[in-house]
Amino acid sequence: MVTKPSPLAPLSFPVLPPIPGVRFATMNSGIRYAGRDDLMLGVLDPGTTVAGVLTRSLTASAPVQWCRRALKHGKARAIVVNSGNSNAFTGAAGDAVVTATVREAAQIADCRDDEVFLASTGVIGQPLPADAVARHLPGLAERLGDDHWEAAARAIMTTDTFAKGATRTARIGDATVTISGFAKGSGMIAPDMATMLAFVFTDAAISAPALQKLLRKGADRSFNCITVDGDTSTSDTVLLCATGRAGNKVIKKAGDPALDDFRAQLDAVLLDLAQQIIRDGEGATKFVAITVRGAASDAAAKRIAFSVANSPLVKTAIAGEDANWGRIVMAVGKSGEKADRDQLRISIGGTLITDEGMAVPGYDEAPVAAHMKGQNIEILIELGLDDGAATVWTCDLTHGYIDINGSYRS
Amino acid sequence: MVTKPSPLAPLSFPVLPPIPGVRFATMNSGIRYAGRDDLMLGVLDPGTTVAGVLTRSLTASAPVQWCRRALKHGKARAIVVNSGNSNAFTGAAGDAVVTATVREAAQIADCRDDEVFLASTGVIGQPLPADAVARHLPGLAERLGDDHWEAAARAIMTTDTFAKGATRTARIGDATVTISGFAKGSGMIAPDMATMLAFVFTDAAISAPALQKLLRKGADRSFNCITVDGDTSTSDTVLLCATGRAGNKVIKKAGDPALDDFRAQLDAVLLDLAQQIIRDGEGATKFVAITVRGAASDAAAKRIAFSVANSPLVKTAIAGEDANWGRIVMAVGKSGEKADRDQLRISIGGTLITDEGMAVPGYDEAPVAAHMKGQNIEILIELGLDDGAATVWTCDLTHGYIDINGSYRS
Repeated sequence: MVTKPSPLAPLSFPVLPPIPGVRFATMNSGIRYAGRDDLMLGVLDPGTTVAGVLTRSLTASAPVQWCRRALKHGKARAIVVNSGNSNAFTGAAGDAVVTATVREAAQIADCRDDEVFLASTGVIGQPLPADAVARHLPGLAERLGDDHWEAAARAIMTTDTFAKGATRTARIGDATVTISGFAKGSGMIAPDMATMLAFVFTDAAISAPALQKLLRKGADRSFNCITVDGDTSTSDTVLLCATGRAGNKVIKKAGDPALDDFRAQLDAVLLDLAQQIIRDGEGATKFVAITVRGAASDAAAKRIAFSVANSPLVKTAIAGEDANWGRIVMAVGKSGEKADRDQLRISIGGTLITDEGMAVPGYDEAPVAAHMKGQNIEILIELGLDDGAATVWTCDLTHGYIDINGSYRS
Repeated sequence: MVTKPSPLAPLSFPVLPPIPGVRFATMNSGIRYAGRDDLMLGVLDPGTTVAGVLTRSLTASAPVQWCRRALKHGKARAIVVNSGNSNAFTGAAGDAVVTATVREAAQIADCRDDEVFLASTGVIGQPLPADAVARHLPGLAERLGDDHWEAAARAIMTTDTFAKGATRTARIGDATVTISGFAKGSGMIAPDMATMLAFVFTDAAISAPALQKLLRKGADRSFNCITVDGDTSTSDTVLLCATGRAGNKVIKKAGDPALDDFRAQLDAVLLDLAQQIIRDGEGATKFVAITVRGAASDAAAKRIAFSVANSPLVKTAIAGEDANWGRIVMAVGKSGEKADRDQLRISIGGTLITDEGMAVPGYDEAPVAAHMKGQNIEILIELGLDDGAATVWTCDLTHGYIDINGSYRS
């Protein structure tokens, strides 16, 4: 296990204040890790609505398949997360773990089965006994508290080098609500360990369909705009739970103007968590923002940005602090999206490098080279075609990535 | 520059016999490299037909754009290739180099402009003087010979660690024809240096349209089935030239049964060259064949195979000699193609690992672990859906790749 925090880690875990209706407990279950908590139970007050976005993988884990069904009901009373074993590709044994865990959690929270949500992260393909998680839940239930946020963030970590949390407040009408969440992930999928997970909570009163629209849109601008290695986990899960305890009048439509501030603050929490995942990217030494403007559409801009962000040649050049813009040209060209060589303008750290199909006459690499030595790299690609725009975030590709992922599982 | 040959290199360059109507000359032009040839002129007898496949990059180099136009005529009399500078993203200056080079080569071969073909490989975005290549051509013309195959293969190398050649003979009716070619490339795009190039020649008499169909189909099963890093060069070029000197009756249709043996031998030459490129993959220590069967279609099978072949997590696991089949499941799942977890059968080195949505009961990793220690890794993925099949070839992702690509250009 990597234990030294990423050089891109924030200085400390933020203070996440209690949110009425949200309690957590954590413990060491012994499923995989010794000496640290690896199991988390969250219990939510009755009436809590829930929204979720899940991996698009066609080999999704048993917990993801469960959550996909449970989300239809739109209510959540319990969340159970274990780290160290993803319960993915475990066949009937995996389904048995899900069934036993859901049943026990539903009993504890005194709720329907489909008000229980599960997430598992860790090794793929290692079956667990059916009661591996369930048997610990009664003990956990006795320890629930409203101030265990950092412990919860730590319990869901696998190869993460730091715990990831974020919080904001927002106004809905006369009420002030809090939005807090935590996440894990140090690759789209991490070594054996897998997965990006995020859990966000608010005391706002918002209907499940409205919450789902807010989360879907927010995730598209945050979690769906990051990449470490272009690999997609079998277990990616983001849940957003609203307990309704803040006392605002229940909001039923995602487009309600009363949600304007909430939406902005929610997006800020989601983006903060997503960027922290990149800052913990396996082997990362640089945090890279790639902005594309002037594309044929927003979707085209995002595909071009991802083509650059996922290019091993671009990522290794950044690791080497090399302003190798020719590789950016290559990655734009391979994206399959419309581009005109002679209108393509590439800037790094605010310095325009290419224009009219070639390097800018008299291009001085000195300020760009200085920018490449920093921790935060800004790449701007202007296509000059239309108004499509997108920004995605990634990290560099280093020897650290090979070390972490090339070592044997045992 | 890397000089130690890849551990996967063949023992020696094959003997490529003269092909009537094909002559080469090489020299050191001083464009980038000292102490080795970096410029090649090929001159072909009148009547030579030509086919080509070119990069799909939308930021293709000036020579690629020239070849795309010239191919419409279907005849070739001269081929000029330089290594060290790709003449890509060089704007009007790049076009001037193309114009001057074509004009000089056409004069030497006494042919039309569009019977001259060009390829350049090397750094992107560094303009050259217009006559950088042209001024060397008269000198080269005096040195043309029919036995300079290996020298030609060496002159087009950039970061390649060995020269790549292949040859076969085929029967067309009563005539025996020869098919020989050489290639370069050590990544879909190499460090600064770029590109996969291949030039194949035969003395068979085959019309340009028939030749184009043969090459397109052959390339789809060879060069379009390999990946080092998923990156696409701005300069990829494969040309197939047929001088017609073997004396067979001219074949006008690609589907002519008289071409059956020729097609098989051509495919063998193309596949041999393509696999040699993978054997020279940047930092490669393992040659990996990924076969997908039972997919919804051949195209789906190829996309799934590439999803596995391009996964950094799969490639680093192979580098670490880790039979981490969970990552293969992940890569199948992220491909976007139809898959059924419970029907997915994954084998490595002939050992079945997964079935019915989980590891095979009693799965013994010992023979698989032994297979992973070898140089040739065989991965078989059976989807059990339909009869779509494909094989792609790749190499592992190692510290060597980071070393080669993370170092500064200068």
